[in-house]
Amino acid sequence: MSELLQQLAQVLEQRKTADPKQSYVANLYSKGLDAILKKIGEEATETVIAAKNGDTNQLIYETADLWFHTLVLLTHQGLGPELVLNELQRRFGQSGLEEKAKRHQ
Amino acid sequence: MSELLQQLAQVLEQRKTADPKQSYVANLYSKGLDAILKKIGEEATETVIAAKNGDTNQLIYETADLWFHTLVLLTHQGLGPELVLNELQRRFGQSGLEEKAKRHQ
Amino acid sequence: MSELLQQLAQVLEQRKTADPKQSYVANLYSKGLDAILKKIGEEATETVIAAKNGDTNQLIYETADLWFHTLVLLTHQGLGPELVLNELQRRFGQSGLEEKAKRHQ
Amino acid sequence: MSELLQQLAQVLEQRKTADPKQSYVANLYSKGLDAILKKIGEEATETVIAAKNGDTNQLIYETADLWFHTLVLLTHQGLGPELVLNELQRRFGQSGLEEKAKRHQ
Repeated sequence: MSELLQQLAQVLEQRKTADPKQSYVANLYSKGLDAILKKIGEEATETVIAAKNGDTNQLIYETADLWFHTLVLLTHQGLGPELVLNELQRRFGQSGLEEKAKRHQ
Repeated sequence: MSELLQQLAQVLEQRKTADPKQSYVANLYSKGLDAILKKIGEEATETVIAAKNGDTNQLIYETADLWFHTLVLLTHQGLGPELVLNELQRRFGQSGLEEKAKRHQ
Repeated sequence: MSELLQQLAQVLEQRKTADPKQSYVANLYSKGLDAILKKIGEEATETVIAAKNGDTNQLIYETADLWFHTLVLLTHQGLGPELVLNELQRRFGQSGLEEKAKRHQ
Repeated sequence: MSELLQQLAQVLEQRKTADPKQSYVANLYSKGLDAILKKIGEEATETVIAAKNGDTNQLIYETADLWFHTLVLLTHQGLGPELVLNELQRRFGQSGLEEKAKRHQ
């Protein structure tokens, strides 16, 4: 599973030059940032609903959709998943004390 | 970056037996599923706002928060990130045609 | 403007027996609760985006969409807007001190 | 119930000059637009969760919270609820055919 997010990010980068009629992601890029952000909101809500339904397959599916569209968002903004993973690493890697990083909440 | 999500999932699993007064995640578990789901909604909205602000650091931070809380959700439901990554792999690994997996939309 | 929400609720009640092929609302009812809830999440996100865009017309339009779909939700659950207005009245009517009602936050 | 939204809007307008330490709404204004928008996302998610819980009181309470924070948003942006109601009227008042207004979806 290790390199999957990076590979996926590469595919999403390549989609920037794909035909919007042929590619779901290229089509989403062509609609612009707001269209991508709407998908973030939609998929988050669908993740919540899936969890409340207690449907494991649905929850995995919707969480994958949510992660996928955050990757699309990152790529669209010229960013990559390694930046998000580095941020998670920063919070958790040193001592396992996620509480420190979250103490502002 | 490769094993980070799995390591993080292990930490989150360990938090199930931590003191809710000492651990942000243990406290969230103790509040139950709905409290975790509220965080999903909050962090998704904050990701949208960060993107609209055009603030790269904020966007990375909020996306990390969103991914983090989906990992908390998965762990709470007895699931792990490898299931979500497998779902992403299934969609993208065979031929790179994410369009197939998304054709229902 | 006074009776509009009640009139709208009556129309939405009547849509329960309408043809899903002819009526957007009847179609939404036929898809069930989860489909209605997905719309709540979508319209809330679109309201956030509209506000960030600083586009007054878009903000009014999306807020109307959000209120509309909450009315559809209430009607689907056998409830009416007067219950929500009563709750708002309860919080604000006595002394104008909304702070009391929100003191738990 | 008829004039409630207008009365509420007047109270929310007055809160613009209230002490943020004394008033929940004044405090929210002082934090700015993004803080208000986060509340929209939160309350929408809580409405979804309440509906999935099948808890009528919770659903009414959370819907009231959602409407309330959209009113705070409108007031913050210099707008009023009559604009949203006019938009709903426009869609539904002429012929009861909400389908026309929604045909773009």
